[in-house]
Formats: sequence, C-alpha cells, structure tokens
Amino acid sequence: MPETVTEEKQNEGPAETPKESRNIVLTGFGGLKTLKVLKKPEPKPAEGEVLISVKACGLNFVDLMVRQGVLEHPPKTPLTIGFECAGDVEAVGENTEGFAVNDRVIGFINYGAWGEKVTVQAKYVYKMPSNMSYQDGSALPMNYLAAYIMLFDIGNLKKGMTVFSHNIGGGVGNALGQLCKTVEDVNLYGTASEHKHEAVKDNVTNVFNRTSDYCQEVRKLSPEGVDIVLDCMCGEDTNKGISLLKPMGKYILYGSSNIVTGETKSFFSFAKSWWQVDKVSPIKLYDENKTISGFQLRNLAFQQNQDAYIRGVMNELFKLYTQGKIHPVIDSSYAFEDIADAMMKMHDRKNIGKLILDPTMEPKPKVQSAPSVEGASPPDQNKDDKEENKDGVVNGEQQ
Amino acid sequence: MPETVTEEKQNEGPAETPKESRNIVLTGFGGLKTLKVLKKPEPKPAEGEVLISVKACGLNFVDLMVRQGVLEHPPKTPLTIGFECAGDVEAVGENTEGFAVNDRVIGFINYGAWGEKVTVQAKYVYKMPSNMSYQDGSALPMNYLAAYIMLFDIGNLKKGMTVFSHNIGGGVGNALGQLCKTVEDVNLYGTASEHKHEAVKDNVTNVFNRTSDYCQEVRKLSPEGVDIVLDCMCGEDTNKGISLLKPMGKYILYGSSNIVTGETKSFFSFAKSWWQVDKVSPIKLYDENKTISGFQLRNLAFQQNQDAYIRGVMNELFKLYTQGKIHPVIDSSYAFEDIADAMMKMHDRKNIGKLILDPTMEPKPKVQSAPSVEGASPPDQNKDDKEENKDGVVNGEQQ
Repeated sequence: MPETVTEEKQNEGPAETPKESRNIVLTGFGGLKTLKVLKKPEPKPAEGEVLISVKACGLNFVDLMVRQGVLEHPPKTPLTIGFECAGDVEAVGENTEGFAVNDRVIGFINYGAWGEKVTVQAKYVYKMPSNMSYQDGSALPMNYLAAYIMLFDIGNLKKGMTVFSHNIGGGVGNALGQLCKTVEDVNLYGTASEHKHEAVKDNVTNVFNRTSDYCQEVRKLSPEGVDIVLDCMCGEDTNKGISLLKPMGKYILYGSSNIVTGETKSFFSFAKSWWQVDKVSPIKLYDENKTISGFQLRNLAFQQNQDAYIRGVMNELFKLYTQGKIHPVIDSSYAFEDIADAMMKMHDRKNIGKLILDPTMEPKPKVQSAPSVEGASPPDQNKDDKEENKDGVVNGEQQ
Repeated sequence: MPETVTEEKQNEGPAETPKESRNIVLTGFGGLKTLKVLKKPEPKPAEGEVLISVKACGLNFVDLMVRQGVLEHPPKTPLTIGFECAGDVEAVGENTEGFAVNDRVIGFINYGAWGEKVTVQAKYVYKMPSNMSYQDGSALPMNYLAAYIMLFDIGNLKKGMTVFSHNIGGGVGNALGQLCKTVEDVNLYGTASEHKHEAVKDNVTNVFNRTSDYCQEVRKLSPEGVDIVLDCMCGEDTNKGISLLKPMGKYILYGSSNIVTGETKSFFSFAKSWWQVDKVSPIKLYDENKTISGFQLRNLAFQQNQDAYIRGVMNELFKLYTQGKIHPVIDSSYAFEDIADAMMKMHDRKNIGKLILDPTMEPKPKVQSAPSVEGASPPDQNKDDKEENKDGVVNGEQQ
C-alpha cells in the first residue's frame, strides 16, 4: 500500500544519517595536490535527472588539462571533475522517463562524474547492454564516441581506406583500432611512444615512433596519401596533416594532448599553440579536393545540445559491443584516493588502455616516496594534503 | 572469313576519302564568335583509348567560362572543347581492354568531347545501361558525379538531414534534388532565379530567390541550421555558408558559376573573387564541430587520377538510373552549329535542365537578328564567322 510505504519512509527520515558521497574534487588549478577526495551530501536528482550509484569512472587526458587549468574555458573550482561514469540508477527525478531504479547505466556529464553518487541529465544517460561491465561502460563515452563519430560520421570510413592517427596508443587510439577493423581492408597507421608499440601492434597496421618523421613513414607506405588524418596534436601540424591526404581525403583536428608534457605548462603556452595554427584556404581545399574538420565531443554534447545524435551513436556502439566487435582495453583500476597515481601513469604515457577510477576500491598502502612528476608539487610541499580538511577531506593526493 | 574481309578492306582503302569529324572548336577566348564548327581528320584511338562515334554531348556552365578564358589554367587554343559525350564505340586502341565496337558508352574527357568522333582514355569511358539514352548518358558525368560525390562521399548524407544549395535550378541542382530523394526524410533548400521556381518546385523542399537573403530564409525554416551547404558561388559567401551549418555540419565549396554574369568578365575579376575568399581557422571548426571541403571534379579526374574512384561512383549512378531513381532532366538539344544559341540560353539562365549538343541534328534556319548577349560581339562584327575558314569552317556562331 503506497501510503504506508510513504509513512514508513517519513518515520525513517529523522533517524537516518544524512547520506554522503565521496567525490574527487578539484580545489584549484595546478599539480596533483589540487585534487582531494571530499565527502559531499548525496545529491538529489532534479527534474530530468538520474541519480547514479557509481561503480566505475573513466580517466582521460583532458582531466589532466582540466586540473592544470589549461582549457580555454576552465571550470570554476572547487568542483567534482570527470566526464564519464557507469553504475546503477539509484533514483530518478520528477518527470524523467526511460529509467528505473537499478538500471545499469552509463553517465556522460560535463564535470561531476567522479563521485560515489552523481546526478546526470537523463538525456546523457544510457542503459548498458546486459553483458557490459561497469568498467567497460565507463570507458565508452569519451574515447569510443569520439572515435566512432570521427571515423564514420566525419571521415566517412569505407572499405579499403587508410587512416593515420597520432597517439594511437591512447584511449581514442584503442577505440580507433577496433572500429577500423569493423570495415573491410582498412589500414590504420599511427604514432605511439616506443614502449607501447608491442601492446598496440595488433590494433594497427603500422606504428611509428612519436618522435619519428611520420610524414615520411606514411609516404613510404602510402605514396598516394591516406584517406583520413586524425590530429590531436593541437593543430601545430595542420598543414603537415593536410599534406598527407590523398584527393578526397579528410583531415580532422580533434583536440590536444601534448600540452602538459611541454617545458612550460601555463595557459599562455597552450593558447599560443592554438594561435599558431595556420588558417586554411578554402581554395586550396578546392584545388586539392580535400576536407578539414574540427571535432570537440564535449562542445558537441554540452554546448551544442546534440544529445539525440550522441544517443544514436551510443546505440551503434552498444550493437558493436554486443557483437563482440569492440571491447575497451582496461589498463588498471584505482581507488578514488589513488587518483594521483592514475594521473601520473597517464601523464607518463605508461598506461596501455583505459585507466578506471573505482569508488568501491580500497586505496593502496602508502609508500614513502614516489617518482618526481612534472606538474606535481615536490613531496615536502604536500603535507597539508594529509591534514583533514574542514570540508571533509578523506585523503590527500599521493606523491 | 577474316582474311577475305581484310582484303576487301584493303581494296577499299585507296578509294576511301579520308574520314572527317565535325568538331566545335574554340579558336580563341572571348564571346560566342570564338567558337567554330570545323572539320578535322577523324582521330585514331591510341593505346588505352577508345574512339567514340558521338550521338550527344553535354553543355555545362564551365564551358562558357572556358570560352571566355576565365579558368585559372585556361587551355591552349585552338582546341575542341567539351567534357562529356555519349555514343557508340567505333574503334578500340591497342592493348585496351573492356570495350568492343558498338558498345554504347559515355566518355568523360578533359576537353575534346564536342566532336562527331572523339577519342577518350578507356579509363574514363563507361558502358551505359541498356535503357539509357545517349542524351541521358551525356548528361551524367559533370552534374551527377559532382552531386553524388558531394552528397554521399563528402557530405555523408543520411536520413533526416537538411541540405542547402545555391543554384538549385542548374544541372547539378537537378541531380541534387533526385539524389536527395534517394534518402529518407531529406530536406533540400536552394536558391534559383524566380522564373525557375515552378520548374524546380517538385525537386526541392523550399526554393528561395537568388537575390533573397537566403541565410534568413534558411534560418526561418531550420533555426538550428542545416547539415550540408553546397556553395558554387565562388566562395564569396564561405563564412556565410559556414554560419548556416548546425554542429557536425559540412560546408562544400565546389566551384564557380557567377563569374560571366558580372559587370566585368576579365580573368582579373575572376581571380580577385578567389583571392577574396576568407581563410578558415581550424580552431573555429574545432570549437563549432564543423567541416569545410573543396570539390573540383575535373581536377579529381584529370589532375589527380582518381579514375578508379570515379568509375565506382558512375556504377552507383547506373544502378540508381536503372532503378528509376535518377533521370537527367533534358531542357533541349542543339545542332553543333547552334552552339551559340545553347550557350546564350545557359548564360541567360533560361534552361530548365540539361542542354545537349547533338552532332546529328540539322541546324536551325538562320534568323536575321538575335537578342544582344553579354559577352557576345555585336552582330555586325560577326560577319567573318560566316566566311569559310581555310581549316574547314562549316558554320560560324549564331548571333
């Protein structure tokens, strides 16, 4: 009887301790110590929202850029960061259709994914196929949506084509490799750090060193050029990339990943690298029968409201997953408290596949020292991170 | 018995008059009088070539630009011009496979299509479906190849998309209309001269006046923008076109058709309009999730050697034709000697559909006067065109 249930709930109310959620919170911009695991009141889903009890969160290179404040439109701190998670629906907001408690779902969100309990707009929540793990689910939005949209909806990948991508050893690279294999006779060339070559070799047709003259390498293999160039190198190489294209080829600029590895890491150095991007003449494209595209997934989803389009792509990914054609490569999982370890691994390009943050995991036992990391504060400056914060610090960052 | 036949042929040889071909020859750049119908020795197919006995040739706006010498790389005169024809294979060059005498074929060629007998490289010769007329065949390469490649291979047209094109009343416009209808729920908006609106209304979802503020009109109908913009306006409107795109939208610059209608028609004025094209920032494309492409069919075919790709597209067009999904709209046919009439009609935008040149047609009886045409010399200066040229003038241009 509904009324009784309601009464019981009301009776329980006063006795219940306020529910909390452990979140990874960015407290300012800078090194690893800017991230703290804090207890927050559990959010309630507003109209159009779903509350997710999170089991796994995806870490992406862009999160390191968020932390350092080098995005063009940095968010306001403090805030819970992270863009993707998977878990169970715990509650559904008013007038919110399509989801029920205990649905296993993926959430895609513009900051706020790295919590035990997060609210996500229902239009960016996706029910997972029954055979999909939370880890796999949390690895899909940022990497696989991007790879799928670029290959199929922008690049128009077809039988027999050749694709070149920078950073083939990263999360998008893995997705690209698997998605390219869904089309007959597609060649994928890419660059990766040398220590990743062995791990990615089954995923790509040819892999070149990050420091090699990739233009020369590509031309050796495909003198006539390639059909699609995917460039996440901040556009410094736009004209180099365009020069690799065969007629009817498509160059896609999709982001930035070489910023925090540079000597300077200020916003200025980042902005400068954008300003240095050469403009492209439409007449050159006309003469050469070429295409140049820009792609920014988070803009598409959260600024440009393409939720219906993105849901369609996600459904395609679910089909491919269910058919066994795609499967995220998971490198390792980390407790929220070990976020610094995870970020260091990504920063040092040591991960082969996706890094997952798991709110249910126990943190690793602390060690006395850790390798010095560019962008991280020296260990002796980190003491304050271990003091309990009045907002409820559970753990500071690992050095 | 082959030997007997050969003997007979050899016996006939000396008695035979040298075979000739009436060609439309551009004798210099300028007005209509630069075109003459001349008798030329019939060409012999070289290795890799096919000799076609031509039944129909397609006229395109670019032929008017060729005549006026406003292309960036104008050809050397005198030469037989024209880019597309259809007819019967009359002879096949040595080591040339895939064609036999009497095959009904389409020829695509970089100048030289407008003759009774023309040689075409076999890689640009296509066997027509049995139900295709010569007129229809000669109308396919320039308009339908361009429309198909732009919509499907560059634009990646899919269910529910919206396309905007300038000059929807032209040859490419007709092809666009038919090809858009092969995909579910596609809207096509376009501009056309007002007198063409009635004729094109079944082909497009909405048509606007050429002189209207088409951006405003498009935004009224699709406030969120369109998926594909096809711009043949010399790129003057590149940024206007890009602004019409929704996120993930594609802008395709594909040529020029508003040159010879301007006040001045010199090469300089043409070149200037190219130089005025704004360059595009890849960062803008990245922020907005947009694509810009250039497309130039003749470059693709004849400079960039994409014959295999183009043959694949032509086969797709043949399938669609055989299924009744595309069918060139033929405005009218003209004798070679009436090329000036045909060009005037195109110049004045009076044709609804394709203008065909037919070498087997009798010329129209001459009239005393004709409307003055921009770019044509006044009638009294054309007398020399009627004198027989020592190279074998059959007829001068019509005034």
